Amino acid sequence: VTDASKHAPTEPIFVDPFGSSHGSLRTPKGMGDLLPPDAEELRTLTRIVINRFEQCGYDLIVTPLFEHADVVERGTDALDPRELLRFVEPESGEVAVLRPDITPQIARAVATRLSTHPAPWRLCYEGRVIRRRRGRARSHQQITQAGIECVGFPGPEADVEVLELVASACEDTQLPAFRIELSQVSIAQSLLDTLPAALHAPISERLARKDAAAIAQLAREANLPADTTRYLCALVEHYGDADVLDSAERELTWPSARDAIANLRELVARLDHDSTRARLGFDLSDARGSSYYTGMSFNVLAAGPGEPIASGGRYDQLFQRYGVARPATGFAFDLENLQWALRACGKGRVEPRAFRVAVGLGSAAEQRRVAESLRQRQLVVATLPSHGDLQSCLAFAKSWGYDAVLALESGRARLVRTRDASERQIAGTAGAAHSADAANIAALQSWAQEATKD
Amino acid sequence: VTDASKHAPTEPIFVDPFGSSHGSLRTPKGMGDLLPPDAEELRTLTRIVINRFEQCGYDLIVTPLFEHADVVERGTDALDPRELLRFVEPESGEVAVLRPDITPQIARAVATRLSTHPAPWRLCYEGRVIRRRRGRARSHQQITQAGIECVGFPGPEADVEVLELVASACEDTQLPAFRIELSQVSIAQSLLDTLPAALHAPISERLARKDAAAIAQLAREANLPADTTRYLCALVEHYGDADVLDSAERELTWPSARDAIANLRELVARLDHDSTRARLGFDLSDARGSSYYTGMSFNVLAAGPGEPIASGGRYDQLFQRYGVARPATGFAFDLENLQWALRACGKGRVEPRAFRVAVGLGSAAEQRRVAESLRQRQLVVATLPSHGDLQSCLAFAKSWGYDAVLALESGRARLVRTRDASERQIAGTAGAAHSADAANIAALQSWAQEATKD
Repeated sequence: VTDASKHAPTEPIFVDPFGSSHGSLRTPKGMGDLLPPDAEELRTLTRIVINRFEQCGYDLIVTPLFEHADVVERGTDALDPRELLRFVEPESGEVAVLRPDITPQIARAVATRLSTHPAPWRLCYEGRVIRRRRGRARSHQQITQAGIECVGFPGPEADVEVLELVASACEDTQLPAFRIELSQVSIAQSLLDTLPAALHAPISERLARKDAAAIAQLAREANLPADTTRYLCALVEHYGDADVLDSAERELTWPSARDAIANLRELVARLDHDSTRARLGFDLSDARGSSYYTGMSFNVLAAGPGEPIASGGRYDQLFQRYGVARPATGFAFDLENLQWALRACGKGRVEPRAFRVAVGLGSAAEQRRVAESLRQRQLVVATLPSHGDLQSCLAFAKSWGYDAVLALESGRARLVRTRDASERQIAGTAGAAHSADAANIAALQSWAQEATKD
Repeated sequence: VTDASKHAPTEPIFVDPFGSSHGSLRTPKGMGDLLPPDAEELRTLTRIVINRFEQCGYDLIVTPLFEHADVVERGTDALDPRELLRFVEPESGEVAVLRPDITPQIARAVATRLSTHPAPWRLCYEGRVIRRRRGRARSHQQITQAGIECVGFPGPEADVEVLELVASACEDTQLPAFRIELSQVSIAQSLLDTLPAALHAPISERLARKDAAAIAQLAREANLPADTTRYLCALVEHYGDADVLDSAERELTWPSARDAIANLRELVARLDHDSTRARLGFDLSDARGSSYYTGMSFNVLAAGPGEPIASGGRYDQLFQRYGVARPATGFAFDLENLQWALRACGKGRVEPRAFRVAVGLGSAAEQRRVAESLRQRQLVVATLPSHGDLQSCLAFAKSWGYDAVLALESGRARLVRTRDASERQIAGTAGAAHSADAANIAALQSWAQEATKD
């Protein structure tokens, strides 16, 4: 599923909007606009996943765009500190940070104002986070997330809920193919914990690259015990489908690994839907760097973006940093990556599309009267300056994605299809509104949105 | 309509979330969370107004959360420079500003990447802007806006469209009473332009306070011409209902005022709906400080917030600062103020409410099976840890706003109303799902949501 090469290349959504010709009006690198119709498409996706979250009892919370750095940074260990955009907050003189992640903000809210609510806390959110891209690009990155946190619900049942929820939310968007790649960070983490601190980063990095030869060499140079070396090298082989767990049970036999594999087996067994089980893959070498995850974790992968469309997992230690001990599990969609994946499989536009009609010619008052009547039938209708001619109306319709122009002329009305300027006569202008019964409109919509024959 | 004292006091929506007991976890002043159920309520309001905007041909655009200060500041003359939150952008070393207003960003986008699209540009947006509050509070302010810009559509027709749109969007939210207070900034502005620069601010301020005596005294001290003094003092009297225009025609007789009054008369005459006309009020002394408005402008007022729930107007000069000349008109809702106004008249919750049921007791798998089946009927369903008892389920339901608990017990199921713990027996647990036909669910919902008798 993750082989992007099978699909035509698509573009990331938030592109930098300006060439050098817009010199003085350039936006900061990476901080572009999301233009029509992409913005509406992303909003529709957001609505779909948030609706699913809410139906499952996740209540929406909105957190501030920046906070005191020391509060947010308690929960951003998965990010490089250089990825955070800090500034001095003018009112207090304290260091603030534009939120790079929403989960720590929710932990703060649950630990303070929501602390007296009974468990479980089920919260969902949507919004943008800001990170700095490292490396030569020296650019920002705005990521639009929609996610959930399930807090205070111990045991595997909450993890099962989260896995079923991410699968059903993906299905709601009509994404045909995706894979939930399941890990258990305590497997790799329990090995890393036995290593000298200086080896953590280099070994983690080579685990992520699945480079057993490099791991073996590092282990030799550091004189690691033979068992540790063998286990580390075995880890990178445990990647693939469900049979990974069978082989892991034979080969990854230290106690933490046994517990973690048993936990994954239990999760898989308890899933409600075979369809979710069929989406699972496994990657037992995932250490997630120094992230806050403590148990099962996962990435949802689909062709196109080359990055996960969602990721999440269990994080039972994060809340302690906010003064309360709570088990927690959750995930977040990267909505631009999800949008990219949908486009990569030709599902960029969510169906059914609205019927978009531009009303032209005639008087302004007449246009508005017809427009209002059509809007009551759920059409999207734009009126146009009455001094224009049909050509300018069609040019407008083409640029702005209207299916047809409704031209009002001396008591007559005709619907002109944007794509090929072919026409349908409609009743008089008064009639254009009155004859707008549902069946008639559906027929006109299907004619106006008819695709060109190949 | 603006007399807030008639209503019980209500609270602003984004309150600072923390008392001193949360010392180290405090958010920056003014940067609070929006908690359940307020967040969902605001999202519903946002959806309602954006849907109306889109139906009228306004396409959604998403702009970045911060930009280079010199780009945004070209269009923020209505704000005190001290209201902007600036920081040094680490990648470029340039000064950036957290957006205090979205209109200048849209002007930038229309002037650059969208410049080759044919007119009119109809764009809508939703999002938060950040301002600093001046004065002793030394706090931030996050304002959630939803607005539209209609660009490149000259003449009064676009203003009529905008006025009808703000009225219909307010009506869509079921706000029963609101007033559209119409001004024409060129009336006051044309007088201010004849004054020495040093008098602009003090006279504007007294116009805003409608203090004719103080204006007369300033005029005397500055030896202003008698006509100017008379006109300035007359301005503050022109405030009220439609008859204001009759008296203005007699008394405000300099050329700019005549044109401006004629423009207002024309707008009123061209409105499509008597209901919109009936909402109008007038305030001809409005100079809007040094804002970018150039023609008609308006505030929408309703009881509760003590600030406009929406404001807008024509701004024909703004685009020149972005290198293109375009007529433009638009408005934005302050969604927290709109929410406040709805609460002030008892319409805080948008009807119909979802039916929220917490499923408790029974096994986790059984709970999830019942929950999934009810969700297919559009219920909001949360499952609960299976080790709980009915009391803990009811405590959860009460805190989180669930109407009832569906208790699963050894093959039986009963629905327990959160408000008073009264019960309805349901078929067995399998039956609880299967017998969930629409009529049955509607009856249970109406029982569960039944208000307490007085």
